Amino acid sequence: MLHQEFIHKLEDLLGKDRCTFSPEDMVAYSYDANPEKRAQPEGMVSPKNKEEVAEIMKLAYAYDVPVTPRGGGSGYTGGCVPVQGGIVMAMDRFNRILEIDRDNFIVIVEPGVVVQDLQAEVDRIGQMYPPDPASVAFATIGGNIAENAGGIRAAKYGVTKHYVMGLEVVLPTGEIVRTGSKCVKDVAGYNLTELFVGSEGTLGIITKAVLKVVPKPEARRTMTATFSTLEKAAEAVSAIYATGVRPATLEFLDRISLEAVEKAIAFGAKPEEGALLLIEVDGSDHALDAEVEKIQTACEQCGVITFRKAQSDEDREDLWKARRALSFALCEIATEWEDDDISVPIARIPAMIRKLDQIAERHHIIIANFGHYGDGNIHIGMTTGKNGGPFPMKAKQEVVAAVVELEGRIAAEHGIGCVKVENLHWNIDEPTMNLMRRFKTLLDPKGLLNPGKVMPKG
Amino acid sequence: MLHQEFIHKLEDLLGKDRCTFSPEDMVAYSYDANPEKRAQPEGMVSPKNKEEVAEIMKLAYAYDVPVTPRGGGSGYTGGCVPVQGGIVMAMDRFNRILEIDRDNFIVIVEPGVVVQDLQAEVDRIGQMYPPDPASVAFATIGGNIAENAGGIRAAKYGVTKHYVMGLEVVLPTGEIVRTGSKCVKDVAGYNLTELFVGSEGTLGIITKAVLKVVPKPEARRTMTATFSTLEKAAEAVSAIYATGVRPATLEFLDRISLEAVEKAIAFGAKPEEGALLLIEVDGSDHALDAEVEKIQTACEQCGVITFRKAQSDEDREDLWKARRALSFALCEIATEWEDDDISVPIARIPAMIRKLDQIAERHHIIIANFGHYGDGNIHIGMTTGKNGGPFPMKAKQEVVAAVVELEGRIAAEHGIGCVKVENLHWNIDEPTMNLMRRFKTLLDPKGLLNPGKVMPKG
Ligand SMILES: Cc1cc2nc3c(=O)[nH]c(=O)nc-3n(C[C@H](O)[C@H](O)[C@H](O)COP(=O)(O)OP(=O)(O)OC[C@H]3O[C@@H](n4cnc5c(N)ncnc54)[C@H](O)[C@@H]3O)c2cc1C
Ligand SMILES: Cc1cc2nc3c(=O)[nH]c(=O)nc-3n(C[C@H](O)[C@H](O)[C@H](O)COP(=O)(O)OP(=O)(O)OC[C@H]3O[C@@H](n4cnc5c(N)ncnc54)[C@H](O)[C@@H]3O)c2cc1C
Repeated sequence: MLHQEFIHKLEDLLGKDRCTFSPEDMVAYSYDANPEKRAQPEGMVSPKNKEEVAEIMKLAYAYDVPVTPRGGGSGYTGGCVPVQGGIVMAMDRFNRILEIDRDNFIVIVEPGVVVQDLQAEVDRIGQMYPPDPASVAFATIGGNIAENAGGIRAAKYGVTKHYVMGLEVVLPTGEIVRTGSKCVKDVAGYNLTELFVGSEGTLGIITKAVLKVVPKPEARRTMTATFSTLEKAAEAVSAIYATGVRPATLEFLDRISLEAVEKAIAFGAKPEEGALLLIEVDGSDHALDAEVEKIQTACEQCGVITFRKAQSDEDREDLWKARRALSFALCEIATEWEDDDISVPIARIPAMIRKLDQIAERHHIIIANFGHYGDGNIHIGMTTGKNGGPFPMKAKQEVVAAVVELEGRIAAEHGIGCVKVENLHWNIDEPTMNLMRRFKTLLDPKGLLNPGKVMPKG
Repeated sequence: MLHQEFIHKLEDLLGKDRCTFSPEDMVAYSYDANPEKRAQPEGMVSPKNKEEVAEIMKLAYAYDVPVTPRGGGSGYTGGCVPVQGGIVMAMDRFNRILEIDRDNFIVIVEPGVVVQDLQAEVDRIGQMYPPDPASVAFATIGGNIAENAGGIRAAKYGVTKHYVMGLEVVLPTGEIVRTGSKCVKDVAGYNLTELFVGSEGTLGIITKAVLKVVPKPEARRTMTATFSTLEKAAEAVSAIYATGVRPATLEFLDRISLEAVEKAIAFGAKPEEGALLLIEVDGSDHALDAEVEKIQTACEQCGVITFRKAQSDEDREDLWKARRALSFALCEIATEWEDDDISVPIARIPAMIRKLDQIAERHHIIIANFGHYGDGNIHIGMTTGKNGGPFPMKAKQEVVAAVVELEGRIAAEHGIGCVKVENLHWNIDEPTMNLMRRFKTLLDPKGLLNPGKVMPKG
């Protein structure tokens, strides 16, 4: 229960329209895209500047109240779910693009800006903000930074952290710090920026971000290539990289995913096709035809079954159809899925898929794999099927063990949140975990900022 | 004075051939490339594995002895100079390339490996390690990571931190931690890697590094373009970026630098040429001619005076001549130079140069500017000339003030070391400095690892 005094002080600070403590309002702040984790806060605050954020944190510290920052609420690991109660801090009023420094390829934004809005604004002046998660329409920049989000262009352009040049952060105890700068080359003091990127709102609240943008590529080309097996597709990926061409996008669907999509939308997959690559290159128009040719040759050398090239924007949409229809198509197989998001060094994707096949067989379950081939990021969907029994949780642990065996990571782009906390030790050894814990304690001695996330209890 | 017991314990640990305490041996460990900062240690140790490093740190902690890590000793800001005595830890025995994971574009190396050796090894299998400081022949990977070194390919490829995927680090108190992984997408726990990159050996000793490499570009093209003023050159740079072409290298020489080189090697600069751009593009052979054409057109639209394209490797060497002759040429103007390494957002280079011109005029000094245009990194040389009087130190402070006014950084790629400690507050505000200090104290409560570097006393 929140202290009445605490509530009054928040109301004084923000006005009654920017905080609420009524139970019926709390539902909206109790979940994210993860279907299993829900927890209602006892209050919600909606600050609009860093001073208010700092003041709220000081009050939270005075009254021992947990605070959970919330962006678009699209996270997959319960990051913004207030599992220990307290208040949710909604960042939606931090919604201004503060500066577009076109000449320097820099934008400065508040964290509540929706990613798509920033992309559109930047596109208008011929530039591009590369991070492109499938959730751009509702995820915020703050959430993307807190999760170090990836996306479909990461194969060439990297992930969110590669575009964060600097941050303004309110620490759990209310101090306001500024990290980084507008400069590409910057060795003035320790690099604190990256410590906050991907920290899932547990080390500080981001109130401003200096982001890098790039010139908008002149053109792009889209292709799909199908193979009998994912091993064959993997060979093709190696062959493509060996030509020096670096696709912006390199997505894949495995056999089960492909079959599901074919069943759902009949886009023309043949039974012998066991893997699909969706490939996009971008750059100067002049160069792209040669790149497409190289990719085609590489695929042909590796036994491609069907190679399609988009000749128009319409064609492109067509080629993307299979990938886009996937979530929907998988629902036809089963309504209950256990999802995972892992990564392995890229050349080990086939080995990982083989291990997943074995796990599926061992536990009589269906495993569908797809994801961002170009950066070794596999999204795994596991189910016992439409009328299947309860899911064998041991299978999930075996996935984790397989990931570790291949030097992979148990969390690739969706964070640890509260759902993977107990698995973190598989990737992080005890001395390193201890160091992380010491950093957390240094910044948040009472453990009030987004408790229950990322770090298991020491 | 080192305690005899401490010395004996080190000798027991390492054997007498891997430590020395004789004063005559100390000279070799008393300096780096900065001409002003020298200080002799009282001992030198040369561990060869992480356990020894950890043991040394524990002993240092037990006997309160400062420890300064040393790589190739090529730093420009006194980073490896033991300004508070104690022992130097030479990392030269950590000289193994441990793993080349070709398929995954990963190499794992010990920090004492010389950058050039790694580059050569990687080149052999058709890959490239992009960071390319002019000191590759003697700087080590550990030193590059500790300084977050840049180089001539940074315009396109970024700096060292963009290639460090993971680290093994011995903390000041002897714990061994492992950060990061071989995976591009990795959000398992806090990102500690970047905190150590650029920390100049003050937060921990790097004993292993997981590095990313890239496919070796198929081909490259080299050009030079001269302009009447740096403003004109700046316009050309903007025009080049606007075409979407991203040169790997984009170096510049200002008028004074150009005149000095012309005087020294008569490479053919005309009196009306006040700025030179050295441009290199790399990528697939097919695409490069079109890129060169675009660059040429962009330069022509901005009043280029001479545009040269290398047709052969020999030509390339010729075009690089002016840049390479620079250090030597500047010595003809004066033997004593005050050097600085700063950065500004790239579009503000001309504004920075104008400010530098004003400073030169005000103090009757000569200022030569050159550096990495593509990432806003200016190397500044200041002198009163051959028979000039003592250097007006106020000019240096005015440079710092100008940098700050343009939202630049007082240290771009050469670190803070011990020579810029007192200037750091110009870039880092007090709450942020305080946070940095708290991190340092958390990791190194006695302040024994590389004391006197990076952070001013609190
Ligand atoms: C359909 C769909 C597709 C998706 N596709 C992708 C994808 O392709 N790639 C990908 O990486 N992810 C994807 N995601 C996951 C999700 O969109 C990302 O994790 C996103 O970054 C979350 O942003 P958000 O604004 O919704 O944050 P939230 O879910 O609200 O919060 C996420 C975390 O960020 C913290 N946080 C939010 N704002 C701040 C702030 N200002 N300061 C500090 N901490 C803060 C929260 O406390 C929480 O821990 C997808 C999700 C959905 C539902
Ligand atoms: C001719 C010349 C050209 C140069 N060109 C460039 C350039 O283009 N770009 C650029 O960025 N720099 C350049 N430099 C500067 C210098 O080469 C770099 O700073 C380089 O990174 C230093 O590496 P080093 O191995 O010589 O390190 P050192 O000088 O020995 O040490 C540098 C710092 O790293 C720390 N350190 C070394 N090893 C470790 C370790 N294993 N763990 C923790 N800390 C460690 C030291 O304590 C010190 O603080 C140049 C220098 C010279 C002399």
